[in-house]
Amino acid sequence: PAVDKGVDFANYFCTYAFLFHQKEMLSDRVRMDAYYNSIFQNQIHFRNKKETVSLYEALAGSIVMCFVAHHGQHRNRKHYCAGYSLLRSWENNVSGNVISGTYILLKFSNDCDLRCTKNGTDLGGICLNCGKKTVLDVGTGSGILAIWCAQAGARKVYAVEATKMTEHARELVKTNGVEDIVEVIEGSMEEVTLPEKVDIIISEWMGYFLLRESMFDSVICARDRWLKPNGAMYPSHARMWIAPIRSGLGDQKMDEYESSMNDWFGFLEETEAHYGVNMNVLTKSFREEQKKYYLQTSLWNSLHPHQVIGTPAIIKEIDCLNATVSEILSVKAQFSSTITTDKTRVSGFAGWFDVHFRGSRDNPATQEVELTTAPSTDNPTHWGQQVFLFHPQLRVNEGDAVGASFSMNRSKENHRLMEVEFVCELRQPSGKCLPAVTSKFYIE
Amino acid sequence: PAVDKGVDFANYFCTYAFLFHQKEMLSDRVRMDAYYNSIFQNQIHFRNKKETVSLYEALAGSIVMCFVAHHGQHRNRKHYCAGYSLLRSWENNVSGNVISGTYILLKFSNDCDLRCTKNGTDLGGICLNCGKKTVLDVGTGSGILAIWCAQAGARKVYAVEATKMTEHARELVKTNGVEDIVEVIEGSMEEVTLPEKVDIIISEWMGYFLLRESMFDSVICARDRWLKPNGAMYPSHARMWIAPIRSGLGDQKMDEYESSMNDWFGFLEETEAHYGVNMNVLTKSFREEQKKYYLQTSLWNSLHPHQVIGTPAIIKEIDCLNATVSEILSVKAQFSSTITTDKTRVSGFAGWFDVHFRGSRDNPATQEVELTTAPSTDNPTHWGQQVFLFHPQLRVNEGDAVGASFSMNRSKENHRLMEVEFVCELRQPSGKCLPAVTSKFYIE
Ligand SMILES: Nc1ncnc2c1ncn2[C@@H]1O[C@H](CSCC[C@H](N)C(=O)O)[C@@H](O)[C@H]1O
Ligand SMILES: Nc1ncnc2c1ncn2[C@@H]1O[C@H](CSCC[C@H](N)C(=O)O)[C@@H](O)[C@H]1O
Repeated sequence: PAVDKGVDFANYFCTYAFLFHQKEMLSDRVRMDAYYNSIFQNQIHFRNKKETVSLYEALAGSIVMCFVAHHGQHRNRKHYCAGYSLLRSWENNVSGNVISGTYILLKFSNDCDLRCTKNGTDLGGICLNCGKKTVLDVGTGSGILAIWCAQAGARKVYAVEATKMTEHARELVKTNGVEDIVEVIEGSMEEVTLPEKVDIIISEWMGYFLLRESMFDSVICARDRWLKPNGAMYPSHARMWIAPIRSGLGDQKMDEYESSMNDWFGFLEETEAHYGVNMNVLTKSFREEQKKYYLQTSLWNSLHPHQVIGTPAIIKEIDCLNATVSEILSVKAQFSSTITTDKTRVSGFAGWFDVHFRGSRDNPATQEVELTTAPSTDNPTHWGQQVFLFHPQLRVNEGDAVGASFSMNRSKENHRLMEVEFVCELRQPSGKCLPAVTSKFYIE
Repeated sequence: PAVDKGVDFANYFCTYAFLFHQKEMLSDRVRMDAYYNSIFQNQIHFRNKKETVSLYEALAGSIVMCFVAHHGQHRNRKHYCAGYSLLRSWENNVSGNVISGTYILLKFSNDCDLRCTKNGTDLGGICLNCGKKTVLDVGTGSGILAIWCAQAGARKVYAVEATKMTEHARELVKTNGVEDIVEVIEGSMEEVTLPEKVDIIISEWMGYFLLRESMFDSVICARDRWLKPNGAMYPSHARMWIAPIRSGLGDQKMDEYESSMNDWFGFLEETEAHYGVNMNVLTKSFREEQKKYYLQTSLWNSLHPHQVIGTPAIIKEIDCLNATVSEILSVKAQFSSTITTDKTRVSGFAGWFDVHFRGSRDNPATQEVELTTAPSTDNPTHWGQQVFLFHPQLRVNEGDAVGASFSMNRSKENHRLMEVEFVCELRQPSGKCLPAVTSKFYIE
């Protein structure tokens, strides 16, 4: 399907409406540096200078006559010529109007990009293009990425955000002096209308383990509607990784689960003794509920690199320019990892992701930036890693091969959450193979 | 308004669908004892014996002829004679049979309540009524109250529950041998249709500080549609209480708030230094957000009775038989409390509630049961108390009078949550009066 109709919008946005939550993201230095560098190390993408710019700059500040073909009566001058942001009103207004004059006055400044056109055709006399790019920031939040794009030289940035965070974004845009460039639009990306197509779509859409929140759907939707044919995506590529890990969390969660079941049996006895009702028939369901909660819910964790005990494997690669919703609805992969630590236990798998900023094919980034959420002591991110713990854990030795088929699907009840399944096999160097074990997890 | 259209149903039920949450409620001994005693100490309300019962019991097990006036042609017997709980199975069995005579056979057992009536009029010959009551349990959850009502002798219990918890309730009903009496119905109370009106409505509808969750609306709706004119409500009455308290939480929350603001200022500096964006314009909004979170959100707390430092006041009394939604949409009261401890501080107010089980006017409870959530070391409840902390706190002495006007309204965004305002004055025995202070709180 082109879109996933099951994705919830009503409740999804709640947390993003808090400055506290935006601040958490804005305090993630790894995340911030990656976007900052992808923009400012490739500033040329946002203000791509062309020859006309020298003429444009020579004319800056002066009043110039712009000859336009005679088209009959006209009401006022704004119908004839406009700087970029005026262009819209101009085009809109012009279409219904008869043009009567033969010349107009233009005042140039360094901040605008002017072109005397009618219906996309140059009107002769003057054709200026400073080469500045138009940008769409999908889910602008506080507006930070949009402001950076403006500072990097973009001509116009459409900053779309579904929550009331737009009010704060507008304030920030203003106090940072880019209000002529950044237009904050409140609404869901799927519903807003932009006045034009854009050269670049930038977005920080990545959830835990990349796809949680399913926000990339909205980026795809934005791309298909609003990106020019040769436009660029920021980031341009994304990958999902899996590796076997060891962790004390496995034992801890098992303890918690067992103590919860002990509580339950105490509860059964009390309820029968005091209130004459036998609830034992619910034990099975309660056990399932608790198993799901303690043992089958994947966990956020910031792992130490030492906890990774096997070679990481890529399970998904996404080309942001071409990916479709169908391709990310479900992720399926076979992967294999070689254990690199001797005499240890596989507690489970960890999943993480990275994204790359490579510009577009026609206009590749001079400085390719990578944002990785792999286990790291120096550069941890707020995404951490997503940890899937096995019960029981698996004894392994260096050289063993852990193979698994992985599949991830959206949860039936909430398409912004995920369900993951591993069918996991252990092959020892001797050739001995342990029977496959299936484990299911929920990314909540 | 008769109903509050703003009350959310889609998300409200989430937590109740977990056995873990139901278990938390079922483990609250004070809550459980109150309902248990209200039912079993007043068992007479559920199997209210009348004179006819002796005749009924004499006939139990035997086959009796029941004369019915001849009314010409008729399709099936259900038009002529019906026992209540047998009515359905009887209808089912009989409907396929042709009854040709002018009399019918009834087989009596101890479990049924039969009455030969037509359109409510006795048909003469025999009129039996074992006096067992019909009950509606609004929001039955695990089904516990419904099962107790059945065990206490009810003829029929309709147990309505919106969540999938119905599946568990059905299992419990069955393994506890009351499946002929308790009918578990999945659906929201507002939407289900019962086959008849009931004698008793029982429900555990109380949220934090009584009205949080606004579930009493659903009980009112059930009462207006399904309770017989002389029916009874379990509980029958409810009251809300307020008292001044002292608590270390006031200082703690203030510390947390201040440290959060310190973090913010560090964040501002970093963002300016590293990323060239000045976010100071958001300080005011961030401060408000954090104030709301740390200082204006009322807290759940299980207070020690010593923490109550003034006389408690009742701010609302609800007669469950007559209350309307309009009357509980908003709670307004003036109250005054005399400080009973010398040289202390008022950290704020605590709110709690109690409910009473008094039966109905025609049929008052022989043993009136009270369920109170007042501060208590011996009988704490899972409701605890709702704590509203003042900043700054107020120095007081024994004999001072704390007066306040209180108002509570439903939150605009979520009608199951509340907003509370106190306009608070301190009068010293000398007559000296401190200026009124207004404090706003959110019950989240
Ligand atoms: N379909 C959609 N339409 C509009 N906004 C969306 C959206 N899906 C997610 N968002 C918004 O996207 C933001 C993602 S968080 C990233 C915020 C900001 N760009 C930054 O980098 O700091 C959230 O504020 C969320 O409310
Ligand atoms: N309008 C409504 N219709 C049906 N069920 C409702 C309801 N409003 C609340 N509920 C249900 O009412 C229950 C309240 S909790 C009380 C559960 C049970 N009666 C006991 O005493 O243990 C929850 O399970 C909730 O899902």
